[in-house]
Amino acid sequence: MTKYESSSEDRLVLKLRSGYNIGIEVKEISNIIKLQVDEKPIIKNDKISTKEGLENILLLSTGGTIASKIDYRTGAVTPAVTPEELHASVPELAEIANITPKILFSEYSENLQPEHWIKIAEELNNVKDSDYKGIIIAHGTDTMQYTASYLSFALAGFPIPIAMVGSQRSSDRPSSDAALNLIAASRFLTNTDEKGVFVIMHHNENDDAVAVHIGTRVRKNHTSKRGAFQTVGGIPAFLILNEKIQKNISEKFFKQKEYSPRINLDTKVALVKYHPGYDSKILDVIVESGFKAIIFEGTGLGHVGKTMYKSIKKANERGIFLGMTSQCIDGRVRMTVYESGRDLLDMGIKPLLNMIPETALVKAMWATGNAKNIDEINNLMLTNIASEFSD
Amino acid sequence: MTKYESSSEDRLVLKLRSGYNIGIEVKEISNIIKLQVDEKPIIKNDKISTKEGLENILLLSTGGTIASKIDYRTGAVTPAVTPEELHASVPELAEIANITPKILFSEYSENLQPEHWIKIAEELNNVKDSDYKGIIIAHGTDTMQYTASYLSFALAGFPIPIAMVGSQRSSDRPSSDAALNLIAASRFLTNTDEKGVFVIMHHNENDDAVAVHIGTRVRKNHTSKRGAFQTVGGIPAFLILNEKIQKNISEKFFKQKEYSPRINLDTKVALVKYHPGYDSKILDVIVESGFKAIIFEGTGLGHVGKTMYKSIKKANERGIFLGMTSQCIDGRVRMTVYESGRDLLDMGIKPLLNMIPETALVKAMWATGNAKNIDEINNLMLTNIASEFSD
Repeated sequence: MTKYESSSEDRLVLKLRSGYNIGIEVKEISNIIKLQVDEKPIIKNDKISTKEGLENILLLSTGGTIASKIDYRTGAVTPAVTPEELHASVPELAEIANITPKILFSEYSENLQPEHWIKIAEELNNVKDSDYKGIIIAHGTDTMQYTASYLSFALAGFPIPIAMVGSQRSSDRPSSDAALNLIAASRFLTNTDEKGVFVIMHHNENDDAVAVHIGTRVRKNHTSKRGAFQTVGGIPAFLILNEKIQKNISEKFFKQKEYSPRINLDTKVALVKYHPGYDSKILDVIVESGFKAIIFEGTGLGHVGKTMYKSIKKANERGIFLGMTSQCIDGRVRMTVYESGRDLLDMGIKPLLNMIPETALVKAMWATGNAKNIDEINNLMLTNIASEFSD
Repeated sequence: MTKYESSSEDRLVLKLRSGYNIGIEVKEISNIIKLQVDEKPIIKNDKISTKEGLENILLLSTGGTIASKIDYRTGAVTPAVTPEELHASVPELAEIANITPKILFSEYSENLQPEHWIKIAEELNNVKDSDYKGIIIAHGTDTMQYTASYLSFALAGFPIPIAMVGSQRSSDRPSSDAALNLIAASRFLTNTDEKGVFVIMHHNENDDAVAVHIGTRVRKNHTSKRGAFQTVGGIPAFLILNEKIQKNISEKFFKQKEYSPRINLDTKVALVKYHPGYDSKILDVIVESGFKAIIFEGTGLGHVGKTMYKSIKKANERGIFLGMTSQCIDGRVRMTVYESGRDLLDMGIKPLLNMIPETALVKAMWATGNAKNIDEINNLMLTNIASEFSD
């Protein structure tokens, strides 16, 4: 078995034909003989079935529960399903669109890093002139909102609608939402010309509605339930009620018409969640370690305690971008109401209105990766690019 | 004017009789003459009015919007109201209880630190045998949930019901919720024998209901609206509908009957919110700086990326308490479902079920301050003391 980073160095784990694992002390092994090599399954990248008159959709798989099944021996969920298997397990899809599946990675989304985001963006940029009516990205739910935010900024104006789809229960479980979400996403993409990066997930505990969220305004707000994703401070942009698509937004997702990809990013950005007793020495370390931006998750309308002021002044003097969001998550940062807010404005902190903290973090990585100087970073951070600010 | 920490060193700011401020360059000043000294208002700590047959309530003021008013010249809110003024501005209170006001501090809650919590706890401990039917703590809303959590653990079993009350709009504004919340808290305290630390705040946008939240299960989930406070994953413990009190809980707040104060705490506790691109060097600094506990705000069911594993192993080897909560906020951490969770369990991370991240942080400060060793910390962290775990 592949070693986990946490597994013991002095033990070798083998999977038996029965499915059980055994561990063998390395020092007890005197000889190893290779008896047989397992053939790898062939991964096909062609269209699975093609029907005249149906639109084409690209299904990029990055991993996650939507592309996994339960290991009935351990009770754990493991990433195992190919897009072909996924497609085959949801036969309804073939009636909605001609779907081209492609595996990009096979990772749970807690292990996806900014370098994976870039690979996804490059893959999408390569098909910008294709005849795909829409693109589905199958993705783990843990960090889906982070990837959605990055793609929204990096691919601003992208001409083909993008739907990120995940599931909270693996596709071989009876309560799985994988099929429902995939079908809804395919219906949405074949019926819309709405550009944008959307997160399409189960709406509530019933099976009658799937929500289409704006990728920069969505949050996973529950660890396990199927309707875990919510649009912060508003209702979903669209609701898919069986075959009916209800539109709830009037504004465009992207605030510019032309497609202008800016795929770079810089990960030297920190998210600092303030709390009583926060040790400002940690902030000092961030300031002194070459970070280019700090997003604060302040309290209430956008505050931090006075114990942080000295370190914040230092950060400002170094030309680090300082942005304020709120740990309340919902509502708008307003730093002119109280003394504390005014103090922080004087120290150069920029209020990021109602941008949600995780989106602000990703936007700051993207802005510092693409801007030439602090003025340009300030300007990018405060310009509404992909509906990250809402009324 | 008192200098802010951020104000310029070379300028003196004076408030004119008109209310306007002027700034004078220090180097331009040749002479200063004192013409007059303002008399400070006398703060009275006696009961304001006493009516036979009414219960006694202690009103401790720590500051915050509830004890502040708008400065109409600047539009900013400043802390200015004494408990006497507050009491006088809500004449209904005198009909409900005999209220003894006392000022402890006059600080916005973003500036309250763990040392302030200890002072509040000591003040309360001093009146444990008094005839107060209840205690109201007027407190800023920004960090109210942190103080409420600390008091819940430090004063477990406290014999007198404690109500923390704040307001989202200052008491001289027409839309203020100060009076409504104070009246509801007084009604609740005079009509209940329910021990516990409750947060009593406006329930929704109507003026017909005030919610009584369990102090360890409450969160400020909106920056500005009056119904900002919510019980995470449940409904409020009580609803106060004018004179009617509706009880929604069956369990006791404190899980032990006897009052056993443990007021110590240790602030060497960090809250680490994981995100893609999190620089594990920051975690290394925390591990190497003598921190005693780390609370992770993981993704989903309680995960962090593999990029964190090496630093987490180091933390575990040093005997640092490691607890997992979820940035989803609602729902339960479950680390046996996915590979990532199992890896983290193997590295010694303790799943903190559905404890909310901010409560877990405060509990870890309290547990490390009162326990003798890591086993005792583990035990305290996983024992339900003040309803921080719910079903």
